[in-house]
Amino acid sequence: MHPGAPGGGRQASGGEFQSPALERLVRSLQQLPGLGRKSATRIALHLLANHEDAAQLTTAVDDARRQVTRCGRCGAITESDPCAICTNPGRDASLLCVVASPVDILPFEKAAFFRGRYFVLGRLLSPLDGVRAEDLPFDRLRARIDEDEVREVILALDTSVEGETTALYVQRLLAGRAIHLSRLATGIPVGGALAYTDEATLQRAFQHRTGVEGG
Amino acid sequence: MHPGAPGGGRQASGGEFQSPALERLVRSLQQLPGLGRKSATRIALHLLANHEDAAQLTTAVDDARRQVTRCGRCGAITESDPCAICTNPGRDASLLCVVASPVDILPFEKAAFFRGRYFVLGRLLSPLDGVRAEDLPFDRLRARIDEDEVREVILALDTSVEGETTALYVQRLLAGRAIHLSRLATGIPVGGALAYTDEATLQRAFQHRTGVEGG
Repeated sequence: MHPGAPGGGRQASGGEFQSPALERLVRSLQQLPGLGRKSATRIALHLLANHEDAAQLTTAVDDARRQVTRCGRCGAITESDPCAICTNPGRDASLLCVVASPVDILPFEKAAFFRGRYFVLGRLLSPLDGVRAEDLPFDRLRARIDEDEVREVILALDTSVEGETTALYVQRLLAGRAIHLSRLATGIPVGGALAYTDEATLQRAFQHRTGVEGG
Repeated sequence: MHPGAPGGGRQASGGEFQSPALERLVRSLQQLPGLGRKSATRIALHLLANHEDAAQLTTAVDDARRQVTRCGRCGAITESDPCAICTNPGRDASLLCVVASPVDILPFEKAAFFRGRYFVLGRLLSPLDGVRAEDLPFDRLRARIDEDEVREVILALDTSVEGETTALYVQRLLAGRAIHLSRLATGIPVGGALAYTDEATLQRAFQHRTGVEGG
C-alpha cells in the first residue's frame, strides 16, 4: 500500500503510532529547535506522504553537511574558505563589523549599505552560563585587526546583558589602540510606534537623543 | 573548519547565506508544513552544528519511508499489514469507528476505552475542493461492514462542513441496513469554560442537552 498519510495538516493529540519507525522520525524532528510533538507529527506525516519532499530534504541535509563550512578568517558560513566577502577587494578591510552569529551578517548584506568586512564571535560572553573570554575567539579578533590594519570596529551585538558584557570586554581589549570603536545605535525602530515602545528602549532613545538642525 | 553554527537559536532577518547548499536546505525545510523562512533557517543551522541530530534525522526519514505502510484493512499507519488492531482478537470487530485520518486513531488508543476497530477514510467529502464520493473508500467501508458483521458504526469526524457532509453521506450509504449509526457528541469540552464557548458549540450543547436524574 502507498504509505501516504492523508490529513497531513491534522495533528496528533496524544498516543503513539503503531509504527516504531514513525515514532523515531517524530522524535528526531522533536529534537530540532522550535518543534513540539504536534508540529513534528505533522511534518513526519507530510514526509511519508510526499516522496519528493522527503528525498529532497535528506539530500539537502547531506549536501549541506558536506559542502558548508565556516570562513577561517571571519567565521561566516561559506562553501569556500576564505569566504567571498573576505576575498572581495572591493570591501574595505579597515572597517570590521563584529557580530555574534553568522546569521547576523544576513541583514547587513541584504541592506547592502555596509562595505566593510565581518568578524563572527560565535557566541556572547555570559558569566552566568559559564561562557568566558577564553571561549570566544578574541585572539583571532586581535590578529585580524592587526593584519588588516583595521581603523574602525563596529560592534553589532544584541542589546542584552550578554551583548553589553561582550561589548565592554572588546572595549577593554582595544583600549589604548588607535582604533575607533563604535556600536549600533539603540532607539526607536523606524516605523515603530512611540506608544508601544518599551521603557528600556525609550530611555535609551532619550539618552541618545540627537540634535536637530536649528534646534 | 568545523561547520557548526553557533547562535542556532537566532533567526535570519532577510538576506541569503553565501552557501547555495545551505540555501537549498533552508528551502527544503520551508516546504514542510508550518515552517517559515525563520524557523527553517534555525533548524538548518542546528542540523549543521549537530552532527548527531542530522544523521539521526536522515536515517529516521529513510527508515520510516522504508518501513511504514498503511493497513490494507483499516488504513491505520503500521509496519505490519494488517495492523495490530485489526488482527487483535480481543478487539470487537462488530464496533467500527470511522475516522478521517490515521492520526485520529491516536487519541482513542491513548484513552484506551474503545475496544472496537477503526476505518480510516483518508479525507473528508468537500464538494468545494472537488473531493467527491468516488475519491473516498466507501466501497471498502461497505465491504468491511459486511465481512465483519458490524453492528455499530461510530462516526468520529470533525464538526466542520466537510465532516457533516461526509457523515450525511455515510448515513445514506447505510440507510435500510440493520446497523446502528452513531456520532461523537458535540458539546462543551470537559473543563471548558461556558463563558468562552463559541455560539455554535453552545447551541449544539443546548440542543443535545441531556436529562438529569430527578430533574
